[in-house]
Amino acid sequence: MLPWKACEVGDEVHEIDTPALILDLDVFERNLNRMAQETRRVRLRPHAKSHKCPEIALRQLQAGAVGICCQTLSEAAVFAQAGVKDILVTNQLVGARKLSHVRALAESVRLGVLVDDEDHVQALSRVMVGSQTELDVYVELDVGAGRCGCSVEMAVILARQIHALDGIRFAGLHAYHGAAQHLRTPRERAAAIKFASSRVRQAIQQIEAVGMSVPIVTGAGTGTFWLERDSGVYQEVQPGSYVFMDRDYADNEMGLGDVRFEHALFVLTTVQSIAQKRIAVVDAGLKASSTDSGMPSVWGRPELQYVKASDEHGIVQSKNDDLQLSLGEQLLLIPGHCDPTVNLYDELIVVKEGRVHAIWPILARGAGL
Amino acid sequence: MLPWKACEVGDEVHEIDTPALILDLDVFERNLNRMAQETRRVRLRPHAKSHKCPEIALRQLQAGAVGICCQTLSEAAVFAQAGVKDILVTNQLVGARKLSHVRALAESVRLGVLVDDEDHVQALSRVMVGSQTELDVYVELDVGAGRCGCSVEMAVILARQIHALDGIRFAGLHAYHGAAQHLRTPRERAAAIKFASSRVRQAIQQIEAVGMSVPIVTGAGTGTFWLERDSGVYQEVQPGSYVFMDRDYADNEMGLGDVRFEHALFVLTTVQSIAQKRIAVVDAGLKASSTDSGMPSVWGRPELQYVKASDEHGIVQSKNDDLQLSLGEQLLLIPGHCDPTVNLYDELIVVKEGRVHAIWPILARGAGL
Repeated sequence: MLPWKACEVGDEVHEIDTPALILDLDVFERNLNRMAQETRRVRLRPHAKSHKCPEIALRQLQAGAVGICCQTLSEAAVFAQAGVKDILVTNQLVGARKLSHVRALAESVRLGVLVDDEDHVQALSRVMVGSQTELDVYVELDVGAGRCGCSVEMAVILARQIHALDGIRFAGLHAYHGAAQHLRTPRERAAAIKFASSRVRQAIQQIEAVGMSVPIVTGAGTGTFWLERDSGVYQEVQPGSYVFMDRDYADNEMGLGDVRFEHALFVLTTVQSIAQKRIAVVDAGLKASSTDSGMPSVWGRPELQYVKASDEHGIVQSKNDDLQLSLGEQLLLIPGHCDPTVNLYDELIVVKEGRVHAIWPILARGAGL
Repeated sequence: MLPWKACEVGDEVHEIDTPALILDLDVFERNLNRMAQETRRVRLRPHAKSHKCPEIALRQLQAGAVGICCQTLSEAAVFAQAGVKDILVTNQLVGARKLSHVRALAESVRLGVLVDDEDHVQALSRVMVGSQTELDVYVELDVGAGRCGCSVEMAVILARQIHALDGIRFAGLHAYHGAAQHLRTPRERAAAIKFASSRVRQAIQQIEAVGMSVPIVTGAGTGTFWLERDSGVYQEVQPGSYVFMDRDYADNEMGLGDVRFEHALFVLTTVQSIAQKRIAVVDAGLKASSTDSGMPSVWGRPELQYVKASDEHGIVQSKNDDLQLSLGEQLLLIPGHCDPTVNLYDELIVVKEGRVHAIWPILARGAGL
């Protein structure tokens, strides 16, 4: 809860109270269009866990996305309320109270969920039995990340089980290789997605061998989606971070044919202390820019390094030991990791040509259930 | 924004939708009383940046606290609106828009702020000139943390400057050694606070040498407050995390006379996937339990280890390689760091005797300005 607004529409950037989350509208639109172009041959279902912002989801749909992904059921409910009609929750939704909300949501939008366990499939069927609507259930295949997701053999068992039970429908395979997204070299990423694709092919063959078909294979993120797109086995890709680009994704080495995006998301911060000789303290710490994937970088000031974050403070040093920062000066930080950074703010301040163009609510912020 | 409630008052803990932030009321009250007892001989001004929750602040005041600390001005405004009358913002508030809110707040509650720069003192005076109220301005002395805070010599200059200018009042010295809080051994912490105290003594002597007095010395955190309390130079202590206790504070080795608190804050999570053999995946990742100070630990299950967090997932392993967790099973996590974890949630679910006793809004969540 903020007792006052960080800015008004029309303000210049330097008038914005800090720390504040800034979206460069022109860059964002270039990223949006770039992705639309790059995914013309597959279905694009962007991941909304990165932005949690209905304004962005609606623009993604307008640019050709078939629907969105969410990571939690409560996120999905927020986007459904904002008018999104086709949502895949790329997660296992477990627990009686959580499941009690699945049916109502499935009856208002096209809803998909993941499974990797037979008991879980049973639970979903029990929730949906008697509904006019079928829930789209995707089998999550472990394609190398080793987190959620089952084996090829179990995928066949689950596909048959889903097919046999009431209220749910076998919608396809979810095959996301999360661990591949930040492998630093193009070669490592290509090898990981090659492995994932071969695992998917095996699963398709074995499911077809029992007389079923796989309606769709979906997966992929900003770090690899062109590999899945060109794999011949994925029909749908789910990148999320591309709208923003964070420091961690920018640290990936890019090869020929890899698809680059530009930094559109920033944390605006103010120098609040220059009492120490070799450092400046800024007002954006780890409650303003998530540090799980490392420190933010300083935009447009290559001589500066954000070296340490505490709760409400960041320490900035000069790489050449000649710090030129004055009290009250503003800096733009590129967050280390966009998703958890966005989740710290209620509003995205949209900037165009140096002025506040709009303020977009991050309505699914904190929607963790 | 959550489209539904995680629970209702009266629910049993296992009925709570997850991930959810849980406060054990009995333990919390023991921590509250323990701190009140341990600080009878000094002023206690607990730090509200840890909890951001007016219900907790009001209980701290009822237990004898003289006021609270906040770390941002917008936090202070939230607590002022909730009825807290005496607030020290332990930070340098810089920027025209931010300062525009200082005067109104200072005219409604007793408000203190920090300075470590002459230009900043000027700016505060300009904002306050003409007001019926004086703003309490504390000089922040660097006592070893090397972040914000000035030298002893500059402290004298700033004290005189504050004294000479209109609208502001020299309220004392702020001497917080943040870096000392998590030094692991009692010996290291004692040495750090001994150094801090000697620096404070020097500053007091030099300020008194120019004919001024230091109304109060304030500082200290949960990891060291008994050292400041017994130092002979601090009159006020500012611990915050003691109400909750997190894994990082519990990792401190405690010596004779050191003051221990108990874990009162937990993240309730559900096992959502057991498809992999040696791990279980829980639904609390780094958007549910902040990882900046390391992974959470698993409460009451010493054989389990939370080894890795991604955005919405946590990986739990068994230390003896014999994982006994079933789908839907709930675990209580002790967050690595309480402050940024609390800042992820809108509500604190207060539990007593296994049932939801109350739901306390975390009203200053996200109040970063």
